[in-house]
Amino acid sequence: MGEVAPALVFAGFMGAGKSSAARSVAAELGVQALDSDHELERELGEPIESWFDRNGEAAFRKREEEVVLRLLERPDLRVLALGGGSLSSERVQEALRRHVVVYLDVETEAAWHRASGGRPLARDRNRFEQLHEERRPLYEELADAWLPAADRATVRLALPAMAAVARTHARPKLLWATAASGDYPVFFGHGLIAGGFFHPDDGRRFVLSDRNVASVHPFGGDWQHAMPAGEQAKTPSQAELVLSAMANAGVTRADLLTAVGGGVVGDIGGFCAAVYQRGIRWVGIPTTLVAQVDSAFGGKTGVDLPEGKNYMGVYHQPTAVIVDPDALATLPPAELGAGYAEVVKTALIAGGRLWARVRRGGEIDDETILGCIQTKLSVVAEDERDGGRRQVLNLGHTIAHAIESATSYSRYRHGEAVALGLLGALRLSERPQLRDEVERLFAGRGLPTRLDGVRPDEILPFLERDKKRTGERVPFVLVDQPGVVTPGNELDPRSVAAALEELA
Amino acid sequence: MGEVAPALVFAGFMGAGKSSAARSVAAELGVQALDSDHELERELGEPIESWFDRNGEAAFRKREEEVVLRLLERPDLRVLALGGGSLSSERVQEALRRHVVVYLDVETEAAWHRASGGRPLARDRNRFEQLHEERRPLYEELADAWLPAADRATVRLALPAMAAVARTHARPKLLWATAASGDYPVFFGHGLIAGGFFHPDDGRRFVLSDRNVASVHPFGGDWQHAMPAGEQAKTPSQAELVLSAMANAGVTRADLLTAVGGGVVGDIGGFCAAVYQRGIRWVGIPTTLVAQVDSAFGGKTGVDLPEGKNYMGVYHQPTAVIVDPDALATLPPAELGAGYAEVVKTALIAGGRLWARVRRGGEIDDETILGCIQTKLSVVAEDERDGGRRQVLNLGHTIAHAIESATSYSRYRHGEAVALGLLGALRLSERPQLRDEVERLFAGRGLPTRLDGVRPDEILPFLERDKKRTGERVPFVLVDQPGVVTPGNELDPRSVAAALEELA
Repeated sequence: MGEVAPALVFAGFMGAGKSSAARSVAAELGVQALDSDHELERELGEPIESWFDRNGEAAFRKREEEVVLRLLERPDLRVLALGGGSLSSERVQEALRRHVVVYLDVETEAAWHRASGGRPLARDRNRFEQLHEERRPLYEELADAWLPAADRATVRLALPAMAAVARTHARPKLLWATAASGDYPVFFGHGLIAGGFFHPDDGRRFVLSDRNVASVHPFGGDWQHAMPAGEQAKTPSQAELVLSAMANAGVTRADLLTAVGGGVVGDIGGFCAAVYQRGIRWVGIPTTLVAQVDSAFGGKTGVDLPEGKNYMGVYHQPTAVIVDPDALATLPPAELGAGYAEVVKTALIAGGRLWARVRRGGEIDDETILGCIQTKLSVVAEDERDGGRRQVLNLGHTIAHAIESATSYSRYRHGEAVALGLLGALRLSERPQLRDEVERLFAGRGLPTRLDGVRPDEILPFLERDKKRTGERVPFVLVDQPGVVTPGNELDPRSVAAALEELA
Repeated sequence: MGEVAPALVFAGFMGAGKSSAARSVAAELGVQALDSDHELERELGEPIESWFDRNGEAAFRKREEEVVLRLLERPDLRVLALGGGSLSSERVQEALRRHVVVYLDVETEAAWHRASGGRPLARDRNRFEQLHEERRPLYEELADAWLPAADRATVRLALPAMAAVARTHARPKLLWATAASGDYPVFFGHGLIAGGFFHPDDGRRFVLSDRNVASVHPFGGDWQHAMPAGEQAKTPSQAELVLSAMANAGVTRADLLTAVGGGVVGDIGGFCAAVYQRGIRWVGIPTTLVAQVDSAFGGKTGVDLPEGKNYMGVYHQPTAVIVDPDALATLPPAELGAGYAEVVKTALIAGGRLWARVRRGGEIDDETILGCIQTKLSVVAEDERDGGRRQVLNLGHTIAHAIESATSYSRYRHGEAVALGLLGALRLSERPQLRDEVERLFAGRGLPTRLDGVRPDEILPFLERDKKRTGERVPFVLVDQPGVVTPGNELDPRSVAAALEELA
């Protein structure tokens, strides 16, 4: 088993573009791309369609399994396009473990558009859709890397990240983040920090963390800088200290800033990378739950002004994000709880499987974190700059930011303020049952469900200054039901005041 | 004369796309586009080509003049595509004064590609090129607006700016800046500030200036903030003060920051606009020569750190730049002199007509300023982010920035440091004659040509920290001859030290 070097195996539904992706990557690597469907047809001596029609699916799957297993054992295998159905074989699944499975995720609509007609299983639209739904969980389970079934340019861009996965013993999962201003890989895996996994590996590393993080994660880098911990340190003057430290260290535009820590370190680190010499690359290594499920993704960076949270910032997408859930083990329970509020927020936005998993309670496991990351990435991919869809991510945050500003960022952790903000938003959404359910979830994690030490009338002036506001009223994000969330609701100020009163 | 409302008249060489631009703009405005060539063919009752061949150019030009004059007098004229040759008639030139002439500037190569073949004057490549060179100065002289002969999208994007020119009595010149991250109009005209010319006119205006500027230009806006004058005020803490003032004023993402002043106000204003709530629009109104010929264009914004000039900044293109040369009359002579160094730098980069004009000496007139602006815009259009071509704009700035940092931004104005830096760069370029000529030009304007109050060995450590440096050595921009300037020259440190010694 260990004799076969890992190959890149492109899998996915019919019409996902597996053959084209494999050819493109093979050309880039200067190797040969193999294609299990082509090999199969060569052995059958005729097109798959006619053989399948004559002999039926069971016989076909058997022949397919033989051919695929033989391909996967070939010592010269470097790049393979894998026929859509062969993954259902357990022997194939077993053989795939030693390779890097790249799942090309395609929308059913696009897949049907490309595949319908010829192929035996692509002749009936309903059956096609059903099959796609059936197979999707299997692809997701087996995937080492998820890529959007996009153009060849994306596949080529992602090649260094796929190669990094292939050569890393811990075999991290790779997700691909797309945004208008640039794409980047997200690596997810236990032990990545302890194992010293880095990406990209060119340029020197200026490591920014905070004093708590630095004491737990002795992270390697060419230079180190540990800032004070906590949201109160997310200030312009702390950013200036970081920039001066970078300048004195001699960081150049070819180097990287690596931000290891929670949301504060990520926000200030991304900001410093964005403005240092008008912009250098940065890598996010989120170590808190808030950061791993939410704040590390999407490229929003910044620091707070006394007048408002994140009032000084820019969009600057990271070059890579490295998520190691082992880091969560070192967190104090209150910090984990704070992250839970963002998990619930994300699950309410996603609905479906993620919400079903979260409402069951239980530990925050890998699948929950991955589900949150995928939800966030898919929203940002549609709308990087908060022009429309991305605003749903602000669910609960309008009130949360006002609470944080009104308490000078000292009374609540960000996630705790988000818990209160979510309850307020659900009240404004007029969804009392859902609000009660969420309140119980929060109470079970020790999150605040009532305001303490700050009065609603102290919060209201800060609400008025919300960054989303461009007209007379502040727009709120409301929940119709889990999975159906709408931004831009301008509400009667009296309802807003009442929602705050309910929290008092 | 005054009875005819100004129309948009598209002019330019054969193949510049005048008809297509006129149709596109007319469709946008919901009016009819007229085309002088079409009208002419209708009157001639046959194609221009055959009539021209039979009757010769003189007779043709006479008929053309009649038709064009009649069109320009039509009270319903709103949009016109003007035949390439009709501008040589003085009567047409006179009639054009009441309209807005939009000059579509096309490269000879592209024009030949599109126009060659049919038209009488587009049958011989050499004659075609010669004709283009002959007519270019005429187009430029008559133009109210210069647009790149680009796709229709650009023409539509520029429409609000063209409309602003048409309705402004002072009839500013309009240039069009293109950059990877966005295009914007540049308006140039005497009296624009006093006349209260603004663009765009949506959103409220937060006006940033410095205390010197505020005392001379009582500029209208919804809010005002005057910072201390001088490069020493270009600090992160000043930026924070501006941002707090914006927050307290209630500036939203729909509003604009207007930066009225010199390079410092523009750099810090652009930066504050870029980071305020992760980015709002800004308009630059440069009032110094340095800013009008150089720093107001290209979207480089930022503040200085003690460790290095512009070490904290981002790229953020303005939404418009408004240049009023009347503002220069209020400048102290030393400030005008400082700007002259950037004029000489730009002329060395441009070569050709601009260098010929500048080396003659004399007043800095409108054509010199416009020539500098066009040079800078064309460099930035090719390379917004300093990846290659744009680095030539740093001619003289490598040494200049080091001098400024070494003297804590207090000994020299930026332009004065650039004068010294240019002399250093010309020495490094081994162009002694050119260096002497430039030194004489500087001396005639009272610019420093020798270091004073700072030693070369104090400057060298700051040179090492140049932002362009990514490897072992700092890359320099060198001059081969005016118009031929190359970036990225990594030089022997001993030559660099010697060039500094020569300035001592």
